[in-house]
Amino acid sequence: MAEKPGRGRTAVVGLDLGGTNLKGGLVSPRGEVTGWTVTPPGIERGPDHIIGELTAMARSLIRAAEERGTEVPGVGVATPGIIDPEFGGLTGGAENLPGWKNTPFMKVLHRRLGVPVYAHNDVSATVLGELWFGAGNGRKNIIMASFGTGVGGGIVINGELYAGSTGYAGEIGHMVTSVNGRPCACGMRGCWEEYASIRGILHTARERLAAGDGGCPLAGLDRRGELTPEAIFDAAGRGDPKAEGIVDDVARDTAIGIGSLINIFNPELFIIGGGIASAGEPYLNAIQRHLADCTLPDALAQTEVVPASLGYRAGVIGAAVLVFRGVNRYPREQVETRSVGV
Amino acid sequence: MAEKPGRGRTAVVGLDLGGTNLKGGLVSPRGEVTGWTVTPPGIERGPDHIIGELTAMARSLIRAAEERGTEVPGVGVATPGIIDPEFGGLTGGAENLPGWKNTPFMKVLHRRLGVPVYAHNDVSATVLGELWFGAGNGRKNIIMASFGTGVGGGIVINGELYAGSTGYAGEIGHMVTSVNGRPCACGMRGCWEEYASIRGILHTARERLAAGDGGCPLAGLDRRGELTPEAIFDAAGRGDPKAEGIVDDVARDTAIGIGSLINIFNPELFIIGGGIASAGEPYLNAIQRHLADCTLPDALAQTEVVPASLGYRAGVIGAAVLVFRGVNRYPREQVETRSVGV
Repeated sequence: MAEKPGRGRTAVVGLDLGGTNLKGGLVSPRGEVTGWTVTPPGIERGPDHIIGELTAMARSLIRAAEERGTEVPGVGVATPGIIDPEFGGLTGGAENLPGWKNTPFMKVLHRRLGVPVYAHNDVSATVLGELWFGAGNGRKNIIMASFGTGVGGGIVINGELYAGSTGYAGEIGHMVTSVNGRPCACGMRGCWEEYASIRGILHTARERLAAGDGGCPLAGLDRRGELTPEAIFDAAGRGDPKAEGIVDDVARDTAIGIGSLINIFNPELFIIGGGIASAGEPYLNAIQRHLADCTLPDALAQTEVVPASLGYRAGVIGAAVLVFRGVNRYPREQVETRSVGV
Repeated sequence: MAEKPGRGRTAVVGLDLGGTNLKGGLVSPRGEVTGWTVTPPGIERGPDHIIGELTAMARSLIRAAEERGTEVPGVGVATPGIIDPEFGGLTGGAENLPGWKNTPFMKVLHRRLGVPVYAHNDVSATVLGELWFGAGNGRKNIIMASFGTGVGGGIVINGELYAGSTGYAGEIGHMVTSVNGRPCACGMRGCWEEYASIRGILHTARERLAAGDGGCPLAGLDRRGELTPEAIFDAAGRGDPKAEGIVDDVARDTAIGIGSLINIFNPELFIIGGGIASAGEPYLNAIQRHLADCTLPDALAQTEVVPASLGYRAGVIGAAVLVFRGVNRYPREQVETRSVGV
């Protein structure tokens, strides 16, 4: 599998823009990542600063490639929001990146770097990465749910990313699983993401801790503002009964949404991704256990439920796949990139 | 549009097998229906009887066509359940048609009629009918929900029916909208169909009537075993406040599921079908009103929500589309029917 980039070789730059980290790597046509780099994107400093960071990172990766005689035919960017490659930036979403929606960052990057720029929603890019180089390799129909700050979805139908009629498909976090339930940031009530995201897990934990005597170690963590999903999963792993109850509740609420999606899509593969996916075996096993109670048996029997396999590099590899597959190219003139095969 | 079948013309037989009625028609390549016929399928008399009824109906329609010099190159059947064209019958579903799952009805029909037989799940056939000759004509991405005994779904992605990896896709009625909610016939709790189907509407009505003083005319109907969705919609139309409350609750619960599906799929078109779809303007308007509160604005803005347009002939027309499009043919040798164009 390992193949050193060298004379006559190509690799592409994949950039993954997140709220906390901007990650970048050189990715070979076989999905190998070299030249890894991470920096805070400084989103609080605005779009111009973010573009500056993207440019600097891409330049240093391109330079590193060229020094090894590797050609870089394009740069891919995974970002929150909905991409419009005509505009060269976002036309929707990314509410937590002020100003990013109106910034034609693809246009600016293309002008500065001199290569075509490809971009897509981060969850869409990630599921493409898993499809080509990860857990989804060789599969046709895949649903991926990414559990983190929110719950995002990536949909692969007949081996192709399904983005909906205007790029908004996959808002699985805003499937209502609990009518009249918790208020959601989107204005609705009972959205799945209020139960299955990091925010949802902490909400469930606090409800259960409030019902206790305050003597649980997790209650102490919460009072000090240090309650995290990791701490809850760790405590459950040590046999803390309160934590075990929380994890079981959260796994049940998570399974309810996964089960609904399996009933709707009858996919071959359901990929559990995002930060929560790395919570480890016991949590994933609890989800699997609850799935049997909230999925139609015929549909569940046909669906493999697995954790994502690309880990923290998923967004970067997915961004590279955009280049290899010619998805959302700026400028538009060339629809498919044929010179670089996957 | 009207074109009389005549010498050199072709038409196909479409059969729609339901629990109450077996409907059949001759359908022209332009979607015109002639030679309409309806009979009770006698499902309580078992699979052999049903096949006998299907055969007799197809024969009489073929004879009528031939008398007018119209050639009939195939027979299409819309049925509850999951079709496996290799087996020539169902491999799943259709729990309310005992024995139907193990009966190779396509094989038997083919042997008796001498023409290829095509079959599909009734909701899938219906959405194909709407796609080619109804509300969905010319659209690429469509979700159809059929509200009746249960809630079934038809999914069109990129202009093609999406059936999932093993034919089970579209079980939208078993999306959980109310965690810990009403027990569903499937064994789960809180499935959408327990709120939005005929059964769900009556359940909601009885809950509201039980909370009243029994003096509402609907309570009288219920005591006599005559409570129906039609009666409730009629009473709401006459301004009965209890009925208006029921209709508003049901419309809200229905909108919650539609909104979730729009958030997931970002379709161009959402078709409301099934018996409930003919409840009329006030109900559809109430659904539309609630949709604004349970759909992401960006996704809703891009989606047209409309009632089905083919009405009681939808299944027959959909069954005919299976023949025109070469979907699920028995015997298999010819994958696409090219001689009959749509």
